[in-house]
Amino acid sequence: MKMTVKDLDISTGDVMVVVLNERDAERMDIHPMDRVLVSMNGRKAVAVLDIAESERAVPLGSIGLMEEVLDELQARDGDSVTVEHGERPKSVGYIRKKLDGKQLNYDEMFAIVDDIVNSRLTDVELASYVAANYTHGMNLREVIDLTKAMTLTGNVLTWGQGPIADVHGIGGVPGNRTTMVVVPMLIAAGLKLPKTASRAITSPAGTADTMEVLCPVTLPVPKLKAMVQKVGGFIIWGGAVNLAPADDRIIRVEHPLSIDAEGQMLASIMAKKASVSATHLLMEIPLGPGCKAATRAEGEHLAHHFTEIGEHLKIKVRNMLFDGSQPIGRGIGPVLEAQDCIRVLKNDPAGPQDLRNKSIRMTATMLEFMGRCPKGAGLARATELLKSGAAWKAMQGIIEGQGGDPNVNPDSLRPGPHAYTYRAPKAGIVTAFHNKSIARIGRMAGAPRDKEAGVLLYRHRGDRVAKGEPLYTVYAKNKTDLGLALETIERLGGGIDIKAR
Amino acid sequence: MKMTVKDLDISTGDVMVVVLNERDAERMDIHPMDRVLVSMNGRKAVAVLDIAESERAVPLGSIGLMEEVLDELQARDGDSVTVEHGERPKSVGYIRKKLDGKQLNYDEMFAIVDDIVNSRLTDVELASYVAANYTHGMNLREVIDLTKAMTLTGNVLTWGQGPIADVHGIGGVPGNRTTMVVVPMLIAAGLKLPKTASRAITSPAGTADTMEVLCPVTLPVPKLKAMVQKVGGFIIWGGAVNLAPADDRIIRVEHPLSIDAEGQMLASIMAKKASVSATHLLMEIPLGPGCKAATRAEGEHLAHHFTEIGEHLKIKVRNMLFDGSQPIGRGIGPVLEAQDCIRVLKNDPAGPQDLRNKSIRMTATMLEFMGRCPKGAGLARATELLKSGAAWKAMQGIIEGQGGDPNVNPDSLRPGPHAYTYRAPKAGIVTAFHNKSIARIGRMAGAPRDKEAGVLLYRHRGDRVAKGEPLYTVYAKNKTDLGLALETIERLGGGIDIKAR
Repeated sequence: MKMTVKDLDISTGDVMVVVLNERDAERMDIHPMDRVLVSMNGRKAVAVLDIAESERAVPLGSIGLMEEVLDELQARDGDSVTVEHGERPKSVGYIRKKLDGKQLNYDEMFAIVDDIVNSRLTDVELASYVAANYTHGMNLREVIDLTKAMTLTGNVLTWGQGPIADVHGIGGVPGNRTTMVVVPMLIAAGLKLPKTASRAITSPAGTADTMEVLCPVTLPVPKLKAMVQKVGGFIIWGGAVNLAPADDRIIRVEHPLSIDAEGQMLASIMAKKASVSATHLLMEIPLGPGCKAATRAEGEHLAHHFTEIGEHLKIKVRNMLFDGSQPIGRGIGPVLEAQDCIRVLKNDPAGPQDLRNKSIRMTATMLEFMGRCPKGAGLARATELLKSGAAWKAMQGIIEGQGGDPNVNPDSLRPGPHAYTYRAPKAGIVTAFHNKSIARIGRMAGAPRDKEAGVLLYRHRGDRVAKGEPLYTVYAKNKTDLGLALETIERLGGGIDIKAR
Repeated sequence: MKMTVKDLDISTGDVMVVVLNERDAERMDIHPMDRVLVSMNGRKAVAVLDIAESERAVPLGSIGLMEEVLDELQARDGDSVTVEHGERPKSVGYIRKKLDGKQLNYDEMFAIVDDIVNSRLTDVELASYVAANYTHGMNLREVIDLTKAMTLTGNVLTWGQGPIADVHGIGGVPGNRTTMVVVPMLIAAGLKLPKTASRAITSPAGTADTMEVLCPVTLPVPKLKAMVQKVGGFIIWGGAVNLAPADDRIIRVEHPLSIDAEGQMLASIMAKKASVSATHLLMEIPLGPGCKAATRAEGEHLAHHFTEIGEHLKIKVRNMLFDGSQPIGRGIGPVLEAQDCIRVLKNDPAGPQDLRNKSIRMTATMLEFMGRCPKGAGLARATELLKSGAAWKAMQGIIEGQGGDPNVNPDSLRPGPHAYTYRAPKAGIVTAFHNKSIARIGRMAGAPRDKEAGVLLYRHRGDRVAKGEPLYTVYAKNKTDLGLALETIERLGGGIDIKAR
C-alpha cells in the first residue's frame, strides 16, 4: 500500500518503530508489535508497528516514522512510501524455543544476539529472552556460545604477538579503583595490558570516569594499537570501541526487574575480555552484602565458572576473592578516586594504604601467574615497582599517550566547592558500611556527571570514633546537588553503623 | 524539579509515558523505564520514562507528555509541572518472585492484574510476567486465584435469582457459529443465558461480529438486565461491558511470541464466565491440528481443568469434545455465517446440516445437564425447539430487544459484490481442510472488517469432486481485497487437500 510519510520528530533511541492510524492497520490486518516493511527508492526498513488512535497523531493514508526509520530510508515528511507486512526476525522463534526450556545452539544464539545488537527486537521480545535465560538458565556450552556470539557481534581488537594481560573487577565496592594502580604496575613490569573500562551505571564512578579526570578516554583504534606497542597499554572507555555491544542492551531490560541472570553476566564479562584478545585475566571478586557474591561459597562458584569459560576462549583466568563489605581508598567519585590512585602510584604517604596493599597483592598475583617472577617473589617485585617510581612512570606514559598532562599534581585536583561534613552521631566503633547508601549519596551529589562531586571518607571499619567526629565530607559542584545528597543522608541514614562501647 | 510541559500529541494507547531530554534525565539520575512522578495542582501521575536524545524532540527543562498523562493531569502545552522520582509498582516485585519460580498468593496476583488493567506496567514488565507464567506454569490454586483477580478487576454482572446458563467455544474452527443457534434454543427452553461474545482476533469472524450483522451488539448494562428478565438473554460483544479486561492486555503481549500459556488461557476464559455470574457452562473443545487441543487426550486434559476451576467458582461445567479438523457450516465471515445460523433456526432445508446437528447435540446436552429434561430426552426436545419455531421466535426476541429487525430475511443478506470461485485442481476425494489457510483467505478478503466479505464452502471432507468443480467462492467488498485474498490462495494454496482416486 502506498502511504505518505509523517515525520514524528521522535527517536526511540533503539528499535525502529512506525505508527499507523488504527483504521489503516485494521485494513491491512496488522497488529501492534507486528513487523511492517517500508520501502522507498529501493531502500527498505523493517519496523515494529505502533497504533495511533487519533487522526491528529497519524492521519489515514499516512505512516508516522520515528527518526531511526527516516534515517534508514532517507525519507522526509510528505514522501511516498510502500508499506507491506514484514517478516518477524527468525530469532523470535529461537527466543520462543528457549522459553519452552530447550537449549539453543550457536547459530540460534548468534541470531538472537545479532538482532539485539541491530535493534531488531521489541521490548516484549527482548524481555522474553532475558526472562527465558533467567528462568531456565544456561548450561556451560550455552554460556560459551553466548560469549562467542556477543564477542563477534562487536569489534575484536588484536595487538600482534605475545601474551595480553587484563584485569577485571566485578564491582559493587565504592572507591575500589585498583585498576588504575594495577594496570601501570603491570605495564611497568613489561606486560602488555590494553584496558577497556566501563563508566558508572549505578555507582558514583567507573574506572573510565575516573581516568577521564586525567586524560581523554576515547581514542581511535589505530592510536590504541600504537600505544600498546610504545607504552604497553592504555586505560580507555570500552563503550567507544563497541566491544560486545549486546551487553548494554540486555542490561537495559534486566534493570527494571533487577534481574541479574548468572549465565548472562558471565558471558557479558568474558565477551569483553575476548574482545580485547586477552590471554591472561585477573578477576577480582568482592564478597559481601550487596556484592554479586554474598558469601565465599558464592564467590568460588563464580570463580570456577570464569575459569571454565576462559578455558574455552583460550583465556587463562586467575580469580581473587576479597572482602567487599566496606569502601576501599578514601575517595568516592572521579576526582577523589583519581587523587587516591595518583598518591599511591607516587608513594605519597597520604595515599590510602588499603588501596596500595590491595594493588600490590593483585600485581604480585598476576606477575607470578604470568611467570614474570618466581612463586613467592611477587609481593617484593610488586612493591618495588611502586617504590622505584616505575609504576608512576608507566602511568605518566599512559596519561601522556592518551593526551593528558603526565605531570598532574594530585593536590591540584579539587573536589566541588560545596561541601557538607557528616559527623558521628555518637561515640563508638565503626562496625559496618552500607555501600549502596554511600554510593547513592555520592551520585546525588552529582558523581560521576560532575567529576568533582563525591564523598571523602575519613574512617574505616574497626575505627574508634568520638561523638561529633567527622566521618566523611560530601562535595558537590552546586548547592542544589549538595541539597539532594543531604536529603539522601536523611532518608537512608549516613551509611555507617557505629556501635556504642 | 519544575519543568515545562510539551504536548507530544501522541497516545501510547496504554501505559503512561513521559519523555525527558537525556541530559535532564542524567541530571536527575533516572534511567529509561524508571518511574517518574509528575504533579500539577494537586493532581499526580506516575509514568514510565523514555529518553529524547535531541533538543528538538524535548528541550532541556521540558518534559514531553503523551496524551494519557496530559489527560490524567489535565495539563496543557506550556504548563509548569513538578517532576520527581516515582515508585515502581509493588507488583514488579511479585513478577520478579514468579520469575524466581516461587508461587504467588492471591494478594500478589491481584496486585499484578490490577496494575495490568490500569496500564501501570511497561512492556518489559508485562512480558516478564507472561514469560514467568509460561515457563514456570501455575498450579491449580494459582490459576483459580488469577481467575478471581481477573474477574474482580473488571465488571461483574448479576441477574437476580436462579441458574444462569452459558456456552463457550474455544475457537479455531472456521464457521463454527453454534452459539448463535444454541443460545436461542436454550432460551426457548426457558433458560436464562446472558451471552457475552468476542470479536475475531485472527479469524474471519467472531460471534460478536456475526451477531452484529443482525442487530447492535453494544448495549448499556440496565438494558441487558431488562433483556434477561423479559427475553431470557442476549448475544452481545463482551468488550463493551469491560469483563476481565486484563485478558486483552495479556493477549497483546502473548501474540508476538505466539505464547499461549495454559494457566493463563484457563483463567481468561473462566474469568469471563464468572463475570456474567454463570452457574452452568457448556464448554466446546475442538480437537485437531491448529486447535488448542490437537488430540483427544489434550482435550480431556483441558476439560478436566475447566471442571476443576469451575468447582471453585461455583460454575458447573460440562465439556463437549468434537472434531475441529474442518470448517462447520457453509459460510465463513459475518454475513455468510449469519445466513447459515438464520437458515438453521428457520428450519430452511438450505441451512447447513452439520451446524444444525451440532447445535441440537449441544442443546440436548445442556438441557439434560441442567435438569430441564430427563436423561436421553434431550435430542428430541432440542429438535422440537427448532422444528416448532420456538428457537427462531427466541432469536427474533433477542434481535428485536437489541434493536435489530426481527423479520430479517437471510436471502436479503448479501455477500460482497466481488467474487472469485476456487475450483478443484484435480478430480478426487476431499481429504483435509487447512483451517488456518482458509481463515487467512477470509481475512484478506476483508472479514470481519467488511461484514459481507468471506468464503462460502461447497464441499466437506469425504466429498468426491470432479476436476474444475467449484470448491468455494471468496467474496469481497472491493477489488483490492479480493486481489489480496487471491494472492493468499497463491501463496498458501487453496486450503483443501484432494486425493486422486
